[in-house]
Amino acid sequence: MRLEPQSERTGSQRRAIVRHQGDAFTAGADDVSEEFPVALVFNGISHAVMMATPRDLEAFGTGFALTEGLVARVGDIHDIEVLLHADSAEVQLTIAQQAFLALKDRRRTLAGRTGCGLCGIESLQMLDLLPAPVPRPLPALPLDAVLARAWRELPAHQTLMAATGGVHAAAWCTLDGGILHAFEDVGRHNALDKLVGHLAHAGVDMSRGFVFLSSRASYELVRKAARMGIPMVATISAPTSLAIDIAQQAGMRLVSFCRHSGFVEYTGGAAAS
Amino acid sequence: MRLEPQSERTGSQRRAIVRHQGDAFTAGADDVSEEFPVALVFNGISHAVMMATPRDLEAFGTGFALTEGLVARVGDIHDIEVLLHADSAEVQLTIAQQAFLALKDRRRTLAGRTGCGLCGIESLQMLDLLPAPVPRPLPALPLDAVLARAWRELPAHQTLMAATGGVHAAAWCTLDGGILHAFEDVGRHNALDKLVGHLAHAGVDMSRGFVFLSSRASYELVRKAARMGIPMVATISAPTSLAIDIAQQAGMRLVSFCRHSGFVEYTGGAAAS
Repeated sequence: MRLEPQSERTGSQRRAIVRHQGDAFTAGADDVSEEFPVALVFNGISHAVMMATPRDLEAFGTGFALTEGLVARVGDIHDIEVLLHADSAEVQLTIAQQAFLALKDRRRTLAGRTGCGLCGIESLQMLDLLPAPVPRPLPALPLDAVLARAWRELPAHQTLMAATGGVHAAAWCTLDGGILHAFEDVGRHNALDKLVGHLAHAGVDMSRGFVFLSSRASYELVRKAARMGIPMVATISAPTSLAIDIAQQAGMRLVSFCRHSGFVEYTGGAAAS
Repeated sequence: MRLEPQSERTGSQRRAIVRHQGDAFTAGADDVSEEFPVALVFNGISHAVMMATPRDLEAFGTGFALTEGLVARVGDIHDIEVLLHADSAEVQLTIAQQAFLALKDRRRTLAGRTGCGLCGIESLQMLDLLPAPVPRPLPALPLDAVLARAWRELPAHQTLMAATGGVHAAAWCTLDGGILHAFEDVGRHNALDKLVGHLAHAGVDMSRGFVFLSSRASYELVRKAARMGIPMVATISAPTSLAIDIAQQAGMRLVSFCRHSGFVEYTGGAAAS
């Protein structure tokens, strides 16, 4: 079979932002990467949901089946159909009966993450994209000074990063931007889980501070923070579309591209171009 | 309960490398981040395996249980025990009976990835850490020129990265470093899957070229490439310990920190310090 062209999304969305530089700020719009649940369905059975960028989804389904060893060769994939919905997609693969029997036999429930994302979700129906609002919104703060302080303090906590160049950090900041605790891990979601676990054991009120992450802001980081009632997620790198949506639904603030000289706040919602 | 100090690993390992700068190279050693399968076991039932850095594992287990909503409050965790083995760990949590019943009722199979990692592995016994050797090793090449060319060509393929600052790219290179195809995604593993799917449909012989990735080299990227018989993985950022192990077992070459001016080859095995 050959891949057919499909109508699909561009992979980015324009969102409303406020860009801060020092104590100046301007409202505007920025393109963010699209993060989107994609269900991989084999012979009618939903097998995995991956958070992915909605482009090249036939190639994605084929590659996933091959690199995860679900089929031994591309010829075992007899058909691929992509169903693109407003907020999700399904890639329906028809694979050779023998491969499908082997797949059922393995009885693995495949699950995926956006470098990382979802925890063992087998079907789109199991997605939890509607977090409860955080109990206490972030109070008014001089965010430029607060975030600049967190940005200055973080490297001293990144000892494993200094040694290896290959891990992310999650830090807990008080409302003045001072870092109280930080944890490192090869997985950014693990770093956040370690931080949350430590804070929970220490009895820290997670509604009175914020997390500062060395990584991008993806869906699962914001969803995890929302579940703990954390009122702001600040990241050094870019956010995804779904991270912005989740933050908005939870009444959280989401600021990214945090540097010494400024940051970008993602205020949610589509933006005029 | 309070967390008790535990004997644990540092989170990094020293590995043998060859550092290339221009056409000069020196053998040496470098610290890489440790990537390690950690099974999360609730009331005796193995629930998820995450690829994580083996530090702060009680905090990790607690945070995971909380941020994934498996327990509502830290008081529902009655005990945590970390069993540290040579190549893996188990975090055994004892949670309140009501939380455990709710967990079983959800019947979710949780699975994790190192920003990303594992596909739906429920227990350490299901791990697949022994890839078959790639069919055809990489031939002798002037890698400094080859990788410098791939590095120069990649940005022209990163259109979504240019727009959003938030996605990874996976590119297919011929043996002279020229990029034939590249795909972008919020998940680095998805970008690689899209590339592999495209190559498979196009009938490209994946033993005669290499993948060039804008990301770190983690376990799952090298394992996916090994399964396709790809003889080299080149990355712009750092590798993990397990990525190095998998590449060595598969007879693949793994080069990281690829820049215009040089790269680091991870030759496998522990290094003298």
